[in-house]
Amino acid sequence: MTELPLHHGLFGQLRADAATEWRAYTNHPFVLALGAGTLPAPKFQNFLIQDYLFLIQYARAYTLAAYKLDDRNDMRAALDTAILLLDTEMPLHIKYCAAWGITEPDMEAAPESLEVLAYTRFVLECGNAGDALDLMVALAPCIVGYAEIGAALAAKPSPGNPYQPWIDAYTGPDYVESVKTAIQSLDRLGARGGAAARYPSLLKTFKTATSLEAAFWNTGWRFEQGE
Amino acid sequence: MTELPLHHGLFGQLRADAATEWRAYTNHPFVLALGAGTLPAPKFQNFLIQDYLFLIQYARAYTLAAYKLDDRNDMRAALDTAILLLDTEMPLHIKYCAAWGITEPDMEAAPESLEVLAYTRFVLECGNAGDALDLMVALAPCIVGYAEIGAALAAKPSPGNPYQPWIDAYTGPDYVESVKTAIQSLDRLGARGGAAARYPSLLKTFKTATSLEAAFWNTGWRFEQGE
Amino acid sequence: MTELPLHHGLFGQLRADAATEWRAYTNHPFVLALGAGTLPAPKFQNFLIQDYLFLIQYARAYTLAAYKLDDRNDMRAALDTAILLLDTEMPLHIKYCAAWGITEPDMEAAPESLEVLAYTRFVLECGNAGDALDLMVALAPCIVGYAEIGAALAAKPSPGNPYQPWIDAYTGPDYVESVKTAIQSLDRLGARGGAAARYPSLLKTFKTATSLEAAFWNTGWRFEQGE
Amino acid sequence: MTELPLHHGLFGQLRADAATEWRAYTNHPFVLALGAGTLPAPKFQNFLIQDYLFLIQYARAYTLAAYKLDDRNDMRAALDTAILLLDTEMPLHIKYCAAWGITEPDMEAAPESLEVLAYTRFVLECGNAGDALDLMVALAPCIVGYAEIGAALAAKPSPGNPYQPWIDAYTGPDYVESVKTAIQSLDRLGARGGAAARYPSLLKTFKTATSLEAAFWNTGWRFEQGE
Repeated sequence: MTELPLHHGLFGQLRADAATEWRAYTNHPFVLALGAGTLPAPKFQNFLIQDYLFLIQYARAYTLAAYKLDDRNDMRAALDTAILLLDTEMPLHIKYCAAWGITEPDMEAAPESLEVLAYTRFVLECGNAGDALDLMVALAPCIVGYAEIGAALAAKPSPGNPYQPWIDAYTGPDYVESVKTAIQSLDRLGARGGAAARYPSLLKTFKTATSLEAAFWNTGWRFEQGE
Repeated sequence: MTELPLHHGLFGQLRADAATEWRAYTNHPFVLALGAGTLPAPKFQNFLIQDYLFLIQYARAYTLAAYKLDDRNDMRAALDTAILLLDTEMPLHIKYCAAWGITEPDMEAAPESLEVLAYTRFVLECGNAGDALDLMVALAPCIVGYAEIGAALAAKPSPGNPYQPWIDAYTGPDYVESVKTAIQSLDRLGARGGAAARYPSLLKTFKTATSLEAAFWNTGWRFEQGE
Repeated sequence: MTELPLHHGLFGQLRADAATEWRAYTNHPFVLALGAGTLPAPKFQNFLIQDYLFLIQYARAYTLAAYKLDDRNDMRAALDTAILLLDTEMPLHIKYCAAWGITEPDMEAAPESLEVLAYTRFVLECGNAGDALDLMVALAPCIVGYAEIGAALAAKPSPGNPYQPWIDAYTGPDYVESVKTAIQSLDRLGARGGAAARYPSLLKTFKTATSLEAAFWNTGWRFEQGE
Repeated sequence: MTELPLHHGLFGQLRADAATEWRAYTNHPFVLALGAGTLPAPKFQNFLIQDYLFLIQYARAYTLAAYKLDDRNDMRAALDTAILLLDTEMPLHIKYCAAWGITEPDMEAAPESLEVLAYTRFVLECGNAGDALDLMVALAPCIVGYAEIGAALAAKPSPGNPYQPWIDAYTGPDYVESVKTAIQSLDRLGARGGAAARYPSLLKTFKTATSLEAAFWNTGWRFEQGE
């Protein structure tokens, strides 16, 4: 975990000032059960299906960011992220689910949960109403949080954990490197975009996005309750 | 209820093809309890506070529609609706709540529920990603549904119902007239905008918005459960 | 002219740093000829027709701003401006042109000039790609510049000037008051939105919008040249 | 030229119904001089610099389209086009200009002409106000017209034409193939998006975009006139 610059710059400040929401997100019962290997498979499967639907919207959000970023390198990086989500991350979910007999058409046909709708459309609307900085702040909890969670779970391995491949995906050097880059980019964008003066509004966006990440884990828990 | 053109044109077709979602919305337990006068006051109060936060976003959605509508009269009508929401509907909620000691600052400071976030941002993002027709279809369940619910509850009055003023607000001739106008405008916009060819996509939007309306009543029920 | 706070705050700084563009706009040969009463009528008529088409887009821009402004009072003020443009300013153009036998359908049917397209779509796209501050900075040269021009021309009246009513429209107390309000609102929005850190980008927007205002006067001059 | 499906489907209908504008664009004096090899070098250089600035906005437009396209394959194709413009087309312009001693920083620092502003912001605003179909119709004249122009000029080669590499770029099999794909995609999008019912509005967009393409050639001619 020492590798992740979690306390650095604008991101570090937002994370510290949203400590309650951040903890609810990164220490959610779903996360702990995932790390202990005790999460019931149907819950994880439902989570993966909803996460697949989430990734479609997340790729759209990075595409919108690319349109809004005025620095050419930042624009190019956002396009690369959108393509990574579509070409690498989504096929990974498909492969994972295929092992349980859940097909790609099943995943495409699943209705988005209330949590997916709330989180993704909140982020996208932030981006439409605001500028690239508003959007990148709304996107930050997801990308960084998964790396932080991955690192925390990897530090306390459970032998024979069936979810180890999921943990590995978010602790790999490629992912960690992309998170570092994202944290540094947000800093530059924040400096140029007046983040200090806009801080109350950006913190509100960050807190809401973090709470929606926490709520998103519930998509999994509710599956069993027949909702 | 004979006055409302519920079975007319594009709206009528969407309502018929989303019959399951529409019934879940208009015959929700919350609605029935409201009509019977048996709804616990705290649930109604919580609903009103969230509905107040909803109206802010709904006014923004009509403002976005005004930007997107290319017919000058339609643009002007959307601006009027946005102003009606801000200047008439929201003060009505404030006045209502004031009677229970809930102040305007209380309402402004309340965090948006998951249901408000999901519904309003879904509608706004539909509008940003699509055109005016996509947005007006996403807005239709709210405006028409409240008139239909009002008419249904008014037809079976409960003596001494403390929620009678709420029912009256959505059965008044002004509101009913505005709903008729909205249904007719949607028809014209649909004809011009190729609604027939776009029907599968528009129906999907309408169904999701209707389901989110149904889910929105839950904002009230959950209050008591401490969520 | 002492009434206009032209050297105040964010607007004053932008105006000073775009002095060359601002002079080209406010001291354009078209403006001087208008003040001297020597502007050929066909040029003025063509200008008014294009200005009518401009106002439609300008009203759309204030509508977009209303969607993007997160302060409720600012949102309400932007809606009022949009309605003022549609209900007061545009009818004034129609009435003016009617005196020369140019009808409202003539005006509606006229194709937008290159200058109108460039200016209005630049402003609208600034608003879509950026946030409310980007948009309000792009809108500022028009609203303030006309008041400054009106004041300058009113200070050197030409007896019998046929364009006196035009000059009067932009020197009336209502217009001057609305300009003061706009300059003060921009200041508040700039403070909240980090204008100091974003200044290079905002200045670029302001300069481009001011140059496009200057180019817009040419819409009139070119008419005679058969373009 | 037989390879290009210029008379096919929605695109073919738009092109036929905008015949006057299309001819003014594809048979512009600039184009003819380019084909004859008689175009003065400074005019071509100025055109290339403005075309470079155009490409930045064009890449943004395809990025915006990717956000708006609801079919995953269409979204992916739009992202590929944006990346092609940034990674291949723009470096080609840089390489071309470098031969004349015009550096990349020179190109980046050049102010956008009135024509570039009008064309690119018109297209982008169409996309923001409308849906993906509105945007793709606004983008069509550029992509297809250059292939048609390339084919026409290649059919009447001028020995020793210094602009032959430019002509070759738009007659290569890759470019021609991408144009075919674009014409077919527009057809599918039009069928799904109700193009028949929306035709008057789409034709207006197409005509304006085509006229703005014609005007864009003037960017080159005006350079010499000191404007």
